[in-house]
Amino acid sequence: MKDEPSETRVDGSRLWSRLMELAQIGATGVPGEVNRQALSLEDAEACALLIGWATEAGLEPAFDSAGNLFLTLIGNEPDLAPLLCGSHLDSQPTGGRFDGALGVLAALEAASTLAGLGRTRRSLIVVAWSNEEGSRFAPGMTGSSVFAGTRDLHSIREQTDAEGTNLGDALDSFLARFSAIEKRPLGFPIAAYLELHIEQADQLEAHGRVIGSVTGIQGKKTWEIGINGSEAHAGTEPMARRKDALQAFARIAVALQEAVTSEAPEVMFTIGHLDVKPNAPSVVPAQVRFRMDLRHADETTLNRLGALVEQLIDVNAPPCATDIKRLVDAPPNTFDTDLRKGILAAAERLGHPAMELLSAAGHDARHLAKVTRAGMIFVPCRAGLSHHPDEWIEPEHAAAGAAVLLEVLENLLDEEG
Amino acid sequence: MKDEPSETRVDGSRLWSRLMELAQIGATGVPGEVNRQALSLEDAEACALLIGWATEAGLEPAFDSAGNLFLTLIGNEPDLAPLLCGSHLDSQPTGGRFDGALGVLAALEAASTLAGLGRTRRSLIVVAWSNEEGSRFAPGMTGSSVFAGTRDLHSIREQTDAEGTNLGDALDSFLARFSAIEKRPLGFPIAAYLELHIEQADQLEAHGRVIGSVTGIQGKKTWEIGINGSEAHAGTEPMARRKDALQAFARIAVALQEAVTSEAPEVMFTIGHLDVKPNAPSVVPAQVRFRMDLRHADETTLNRLGALVEQLIDVNAPPCATDIKRLVDAPPNTFDTDLRKGILAAAERLGHPAMELLSAAGHDARHLAKVTRAGMIFVPCRAGLSHHPDEWIEPEHAAAGAAVLLEVLENLLDEEG
Repeated sequence: MKDEPSETRVDGSRLWSRLMELAQIGATGVPGEVNRQALSLEDAEACALLIGWATEAGLEPAFDSAGNLFLTLIGNEPDLAPLLCGSHLDSQPTGGRFDGALGVLAALEAASTLAGLGRTRRSLIVVAWSNEEGSRFAPGMTGSSVFAGTRDLHSIREQTDAEGTNLGDALDSFLARFSAIEKRPLGFPIAAYLELHIEQADQLEAHGRVIGSVTGIQGKKTWEIGINGSEAHAGTEPMARRKDALQAFARIAVALQEAVTSEAPEVMFTIGHLDVKPNAPSVVPAQVRFRMDLRHADETTLNRLGALVEQLIDVNAPPCATDIKRLVDAPPNTFDTDLRKGILAAAERLGHPAMELLSAAGHDARHLAKVTRAGMIFVPCRAGLSHHPDEWIEPEHAAAGAAVLLEVLENLLDEEG
Repeated sequence: MKDEPSETRVDGSRLWSRLMELAQIGATGVPGEVNRQALSLEDAEACALLIGWATEAGLEPAFDSAGNLFLTLIGNEPDLAPLLCGSHLDSQPTGGRFDGALGVLAALEAASTLAGLGRTRRSLIVVAWSNEEGSRFAPGMTGSSVFAGTRDLHSIREQTDAEGTNLGDALDSFLARFSAIEKRPLGFPIAAYLELHIEQADQLEAHGRVIGSVTGIQGKKTWEIGINGSEAHAGTEPMARRKDALQAFARIAVALQEAVTSEAPEVMFTIGHLDVKPNAPSVVPAQVRFRMDLRHADETTLNRLGALVEQLIDVNAPPCATDIKRLVDAPPNTFDTDLRKGILAAAERLGHPAMELLSAAGHDARHLAKVTRAGMIFVPCRAGLSHHPDEWIEPEHAAAGAAVLLEVLENLLDEEG
């Protein structure tokens, strides 16, 4: 037990006003909407704002070569592996104000409080991972995956955006804006990783809870599919002779949606991205490329559905041909049992109703869990709505999340090394 | 009967070499492929090349305010309404070398021959209509439709391309490149219009004919359809709760294709253009906009199918909403009977096997037919392939088409006013 509940030891109103200030960077004009994609000017501006706040609080900034931003509160025993705590600052092209931002700014609040107290044994590092969303450079989580060694720097640098810019060039330009900031080597031992995030689903809301202790993340597979047909004149090419790539896509999309939802109604199946060539009104489409995203909590089911969708693409594509490229193949993962318990215990001490739940969305913590003890804390978001301008959390829930984070961090920072 | 067959009176090898030279403008590197979209730099370069050739032959160039290029061979009685003959220079983004280009360059060959003979009574004007294809600024045929008064200049200037540039601004920049060229008023009386074009289907080839006398153009309806769903996170939004605009599109596309082809197998139905928003791999699509193109030779059938597709969109869209915007509604049209006979007779005199046929593709002649006698001559294109890098015609067919054109023009130029 602490002398005073940590609720009063994080500055909830500063946290909220910083969330609102950060949301101005990349604001599109649509109320609540933020477009702050990875390695954009807006992303750099957000990092600069964060560095300013962190420096005021006595934290030391540094970037690694994957574009991850680390803000270090030095402990009494700097040779001990530090604690890492954070999330990401990039958003979807039509994203909201809290996804990612809450986890970074709440970690900064916790660190600011700790900076005002006596020194802890371990150092605490607030982190903003690069390109979590992957909307500009897919797949996402490039920063955390390279940090954790599940991907290598060379391969993420080869990813390209819709304009053909590669991530490597965008990253070099991005880092060049921060020439005055220290660079630190890629990857280092850490004692544990904690991430606060909005739930992006409505279990907490449905159960009337304020804090979620996340048991794990559902598994995810993604693909990039090419459908290759034949360009022809829309007014003259007989229907029976066409190889229309967009019609083949439509057949595939309908068949896949029906098959996966009837096999497993709880599945998450999404075709979010699609390009048509030549995309001219009076030309039969010659080529379609699309991205497919399949998620499920159970590894066996996920693998079965994955094989099914690949098979149904081949069945429905003719007379067009296809190429199927697997991008992400992440099995479901489980977070550290002690951290899960620690989060529930901290919520209880602070009087916040809590529950365990599974994350349907992917998070950087997935990669960190491979190299250290990792845990996640969720707070409710209204109606489970996320990646949307109407994404919303209650200010008191943001403060409660930050308070629980502080409580758990404090225990970890002083534990025996 | 002429003293010598007009076959020998057009320069077939010059026509062919000019077709090849013109195809270098906008050449993409893919063999045969041309990207010379309306009002682009390439379109301007093509006009400049044409003006050079026409000036050498003694023709006088002028643009009107819709971007149409007129090249006049002055007759003995310049107060008589002139004959108009031509086609267009713009191409699809991945177009071929002959669609449009053949009609303009063959008209120039005919005019060059006539310029070398004694003066005709009427003036002959070679025309290159602006933006026939409509691939950059949809719908197309803006130049000919404004010339014929079926659309007005103001409304075509409001059309925008994918980058949001409006046609009016692109047209002003385009015309500014030709400040030294005379401008002529929009629209003027004409005695008749003739257009030579590749068939873009395979009836001539299938029947072993070289010349087609076109009876008319099949009717065409086009739409722009919006599907409005709801943006959501691909990993957390339960399937049953989604309003996925791309899945709604897929259902609609499959239902429409099945319905129209089973009702009328000879229909032409194409969805050639589609945009997805936000088009991010891990976001459920909130909005889809697509273009739909429906063509049929019979007006009653066309109207019945048009009503059917609109109804099926409404049936298949829920839980998404739709907005349906009708763009083009062109009934089938019929070309002038005397011109049709004149084309057949000219082909016979020159010894080219000919037949009457219906055009499946739309052409500028559709609009001219509303204000004057209009006729079209087709030559075969290999396997009916068009709007494609492999689009191909035989050099001797190009020459035959130009010779028939010259023969028909000569008769018209000297007829009583």
